[in-house]
Amino acid sequence: MTSLDDLPLRDELRGQSAYGAPQLDVAVRLNTNENPYPLPEPLVARIAERVAEAARGLNRYPDRDVVELRTELARYLGRTTGHLVGADQVWAANGSNEVIQQLLQAFGGPGRTAIGFEPSYSMHALISRGTGTAWVSGPRHADFTIDTGAARREIAALRPDVVFVCSPNNPTGTATDAETVLALYDAAQAAKPSLVVVDEAYGEFSHQPSLLPLIEGRPNLVLTRTMSKAFGAAGLRLGYLAADPAVVEAVQLVRLPYHLSAVNQATALAALEYTDTLLGYVEQLKAERDRVVTELRAFGYRVTDSDANFVQFGRFADGHGAWQAFLDRGVLIRDNGVPGWLRATTGTPGENSAFLDAAKAVFTTHSTEHSTEYSGDSRTDKESA
Amino acid sequence: MTSLDDLPLRDELRGQSAYGAPQLDVAVRLNTNENPYPLPEPLVARIAERVAEAARGLNRYPDRDVVELRTELARYLGRTTGHLVGADQVWAANGSNEVIQQLLQAFGGPGRTAIGFEPSYSMHALISRGTGTAWVSGPRHADFTIDTGAARREIAALRPDVVFVCSPNNPTGTATDAETVLALYDAAQAAKPSLVVVDEAYGEFSHQPSLLPLIEGRPNLVLTRTMSKAFGAAGLRLGYLAADPAVVEAVQLVRLPYHLSAVNQATALAALEYTDTLLGYVEQLKAERDRVVTELRAFGYRVTDSDANFVQFGRFADGHGAWQAFLDRGVLIRDNGVPGWLRATTGTPGENSAFLDAAKAVFTTHSTEHSTEYSGDSRTDKESA
Repeated sequence: MTSLDDLPLRDELRGQSAYGAPQLDVAVRLNTNENPYPLPEPLVARIAERVAEAARGLNRYPDRDVVELRTELARYLGRTTGHLVGADQVWAANGSNEVIQQLLQAFGGPGRTAIGFEPSYSMHALISRGTGTAWVSGPRHADFTIDTGAARREIAALRPDVVFVCSPNNPTGTATDAETVLALYDAAQAAKPSLVVVDEAYGEFSHQPSLLPLIEGRPNLVLTRTMSKAFGAAGLRLGYLAADPAVVEAVQLVRLPYHLSAVNQATALAALEYTDTLLGYVEQLKAERDRVVTELRAFGYRVTDSDANFVQFGRFADGHGAWQAFLDRGVLIRDNGVPGWLRATTGTPGENSAFLDAAKAVFTTHSTEHSTEYSGDSRTDKESA
Repeated sequence: MTSLDDLPLRDELRGQSAYGAPQLDVAVRLNTNENPYPLPEPLVARIAERVAEAARGLNRYPDRDVVELRTELARYLGRTTGHLVGADQVWAANGSNEVIQQLLQAFGGPGRTAIGFEPSYSMHALISRGTGTAWVSGPRHADFTIDTGAARREIAALRPDVVFVCSPNNPTGTATDAETVLALYDAAQAAKPSLVVVDEAYGEFSHQPSLLPLIEGRPNLVLTRTMSKAFGAAGLRLGYLAADPAVVEAVQLVRLPYHLSAVNQATALAALEYTDTLLGYVEQLKAERDRVVTELRAFGYRVTDSDANFVQFGRFADGHGAWQAFLDRGVLIRDNGVPGWLRATTGTPGENSAFLDAAKAVFTTHSTEHSTEYSGDSRTDKESA
């Protein structure tokens, strides 16, 4: 039998295993930040209707430039953030992962460098490496907020081509404020012209307004979004960006032609018709998220402030053991590899209560208030805040 | 206003324009090798049904490993080629373009080289360059068949990491026989272990059987396919490969997680239920394709032997002028940049007759039997064959 090692694989892929959370069949699945609310039945019917319409022309290639969908996404952004953008400022692809890949193909790649402030969305690093872009892990405070001073110094020294800022940050949950993003943007542009990508995958769940208005007058600033979370459509894989029209032209140079299927486009358009209903679920999830934070803190856990549809909590001397203790209680959460911390998606009220029951039990067996596994420069100061 | 030149774009993208045939609104569109037959209404209804089912779980990520669809694609390959393959030998992605991109990310990339025998499918070169893989254009005979001797010498000298063979070849139309593929495979392995990708996007339209059985015992040989043409589903963007299971493991290292949406998977599964109906259309198209070849030759054109759903014909001193002359008659065909030749997709009988009427008229004004624009080593010998 042939093994991977027998193939003429790239050297840096040897010994690697494929990315991805375990897809286990557990009663309460709070591990991949999915929206727990299925799409409402009228929307399911509308999707079937729009997809049938698209299927009647499926023998033809889809709209390569995705004009109708980009128009509706632009309308959505304008309506929900108050900052108007045109369809020429919006681009869509198969998940924000593909959007990020296209950005890195155009602005990163061999001989170029990207930086992100970790722990953060692990795909930023993985897709950078996958596109041949060198990856540098920048600093954060021990409370997981970005250490602006240290970040600016790092950017000045490194002169990166692409800077990733995740807001709200995954897996920690906290939003990055506009002041910090602008400080990083200015530092990056002062070092050399470079692209700053603000990943707002969880933007709709934040306590702070969208950072979208920052793209105004800043052609090297890109905002990425997804329909996976707020629109309850992780299965649809629809990510998008908003930026200067020149950035959209740039990704069109590297995107695979006809990258987005006609059925994906039709499904996304149907979901956008139900924006108000779906954003209603977001409001419920935000309230539940806040409840989970409050209760976990009442149990004695340390909980990172959350602006997302998930909560990072700890600390655990043995994070993987704690993760397993939750799983043993029928609750699948995520061990993101941040030492001492675990991440739980906000589910339905019932799922969250099941999670909280488990958390209460796990606290007595696994929580270690004074873990030494994770330490940062300003841990004591920041964590007492 | 910001222009592309103002952005920190990669140097090699400067001055480029996006790939793609013009999407013009013309009565007879025979430019992108689409299947002219819309999906039958019962299949449209079945797609709506399966997509609605998928939409009910759309808040969850799709099956990352696409198991059900790979199982059905394996069954399809076994049934139609007589060569049985397992689901672990099949991988699917958004169009064969994404399959090719994943293969190049795993087996090509910076510091590595790919070769194809041009003119051939232009995306092989474009995706190679997009993944940082050096691209080398290998030789063909003047009749567009692969010059095996020259190709073997080129492979021995170049020692490429990836070898592309397109069968039937696009844009020229002729299939590559098993003997030629094996000669190239052996030459490539003798030079150094390297991946040989046989692109059978138009395989179902060929006069010769599929090259699928060649993967047996050859772990570095990959066959790629698409549902765009034979399944009349260009809008679905569903490409796939068949190879040794280790190759499937390899692409799973580089694929973006959850790359294929649940609605794409559901639509493809519905289409596979209608394989017999759709392959019936393929038989009609093959007969029409043969009619077009015969009639064009009767008009006096030179026509490359076709195993695909399109025909390459010529020759023209002014190919672009001839292309425009067809467009002026309401028939959109393709100017692929092969000097002296144009390419016309096989459409419905009515579309083909409209094309042939135009071709008859254009022959008198634009055809040049003794064009000197394209010349190859063995032009005279081969073209008299």
